[in-house]
Amino acid sequence: MTTVVRRRMGVEERREQLIAVALEQFSRRSPDEVSIDDIATAAGISRPLVYHYFPGKHSLYEAAVSRAAEELANRFTEPREGPLGARMLRVVNRYFDFVDDHGPGFAALLRGGSAVGPERANALIDDVREAAYRQILLHLGTDEPGPRLGLVVRSWIGLAETTALTWLDGCDVPREEMELQLAHDFLALAAVTAAYDEETAAVVRAIVSEQTADGAFAAFLSRLAEFSPRPTA
Amino acid sequence: MTTVVRRRMGVEERREQLIAVALEQFSRRSPDEVSIDDIATAAGISRPLVYHYFPGKHSLYEAAVSRAAEELANRFTEPREGPLGARMLRVVNRYFDFVDDHGPGFAALLRGGSAVGPERANALIDDVREAAYRQILLHLGTDEPGPRLGLVVRSWIGLAETTALTWLDGCDVPREEMELQLAHDFLALAAVTAAYDEETAAVVRAIVSEQTADGAFAAFLSRLAEFSPRPTA
Repeated sequence: MTTVVRRRMGVEERREQLIAVALEQFSRRSPDEVSIDDIATAAGISRPLVYHYFPGKHSLYEAAVSRAAEELANRFTEPREGPLGARMLRVVNRYFDFVDDHGPGFAALLRGGSAVGPERANALIDDVREAAYRQILLHLGTDEPGPRLGLVVRSWIGLAETTALTWLDGCDVPREEMELQLAHDFLALAAVTAAYDEETAAVVRAIVSEQTADGAFAAFLSRLAEFSPRPTA
Repeated sequence: MTTVVRRRMGVEERREQLIAVALEQFSRRSPDEVSIDDIATAAGISRPLVYHYFPGKHSLYEAAVSRAAEELANRFTEPREGPLGARMLRVVNRYFDFVDDHGPGFAALLRGGSAVGPERANALIDDVREAAYRQILLHLGTDEPGPRLGLVVRSWIGLAETTALTWLDGCDVPREEMELQLAHDFLALAAVTAAYDEETAAVVRAIVSEQTADGAFAAFLSRLAEFSPRPTA
C-alpha cells in the first residue's frame, strides 16, 4: 500500500482484496492446488485473518468463482450495432481474453475441480450459459426462440466451451483463427438447422445478406461454394 | 450384520446385481436422489448387505457409473464400411439410445451430481470422450490428426453432449431430426475448418464425394447451395 498513513482495511475492502488475490492465484493454478496459506502469503496477511473474513476455503473460493462468473457474463454485453458477424467476433474475442486471463480457474470450474462443490459450480456455469444464451437471442431479435433455434444457440455455447478448453490444453491453432472459426461455426450450425426450421433460416439469411467480401463470414461462405452439392445421378 | 440365510448369489453375481439395480434407478432419478435404502429395496436385500458388497454409497455409485461409461464407449464401435455419413448416423443413433436409457444418470454425471466425486466423474467423462475421439479418427483414417482436424472432432463431441443434455431437458425437437442434424453438424464444422486446413478439407471432400441424393448429408448440402455467397460489389 502506498498511502502515507497506514490504515486497516475495512471488511469489504479486505474481502475484495482476498477475492482478487484468489482470482490471481486461480489464473495460474487450479483452485484445488491453491491453499489458504498461498492466499494469505500473497495477500500479506496471516492465515487466521483470512479465515476471519471467509469462514473457510470453500466460502472464499465460491466468492472468487462467483465474481469471475459475473465478470464473464458481463463480457457478453455487446451493442446491437453493425453486422451480426462482427458483433459475434467481438464477443468471442472478449471471451477468449477472459479464458486467457483465468485459464486454470476456468478449466477447473468446467471440469469439477474448482473446490466450490459440484452443485454450486454447476449453478454458476448455468448462470453464465444462460447469460450468453439471452444475449445472443437479443442480437437475433427474439426472446422466445423455437426449440430448433434455441438448440442452435445452446449448442454453439457448448461448442465455445469445448473450443476454449481444447485451446487451454495446448491446441496448436492460433487464437485469432480459433475465434474466427467459432464465429463461422455459428453460421454453419444455423445453416444445418435452417433445413428444418424457417426461423433459423431467417437468421442465416439475415447474417448472409449483410456480408461483404471482407466480412467475418466471407471466407467461410466462399469456401462453402467449393463444397456445394454435385449434380446427382 | 448377519447372513445366515441361504446364499444363492456369489459375490460377483451379487455385485453385478447391485450395479444393475443402481443403473436402473439412475435411469429414472439423479444418483444424488437415490439412497442405499432405495437400492436395497429394489434389490430385495437388506441395507447392511448392500454395504457388505460395496463399502459405501460412493463405491457402488462409482462402480455403476464406470459400468455405464464403459457401455457408452462400446457403442461408438462401428464397422468401417459404407459411407461415412451413414456410419456416423448409426453411432449417433446408438448414442441417443444410451442417453434415452440412462437420462438422469447421464445428465447428472455431466453436471457434477453423480455422487462419485468431481475428480472421478471427470476422469470417466474424459475416458468416454477419448474413446469417441479415437473411434472417429479411425473412421477418418488417421490416428495423428493435425490440431485443426483434432479440434473439429473434439468440438463435435462436445456438441453431441450439449445436444443430448438439451434434449433431456425437454427440447421439443424430434429425436430422429436431432440425430440427423448432429451428423450434419460434423460436416458443417469440418467445412468451416476446411478454409484453414487441407487435412480437414480432404475429409469434407471425402464425405461429400460419397453422397448420393438420399444420403445422410444430402439435405444439408442442397440447402447450403441456397446460402452460397452472393456476388460481391
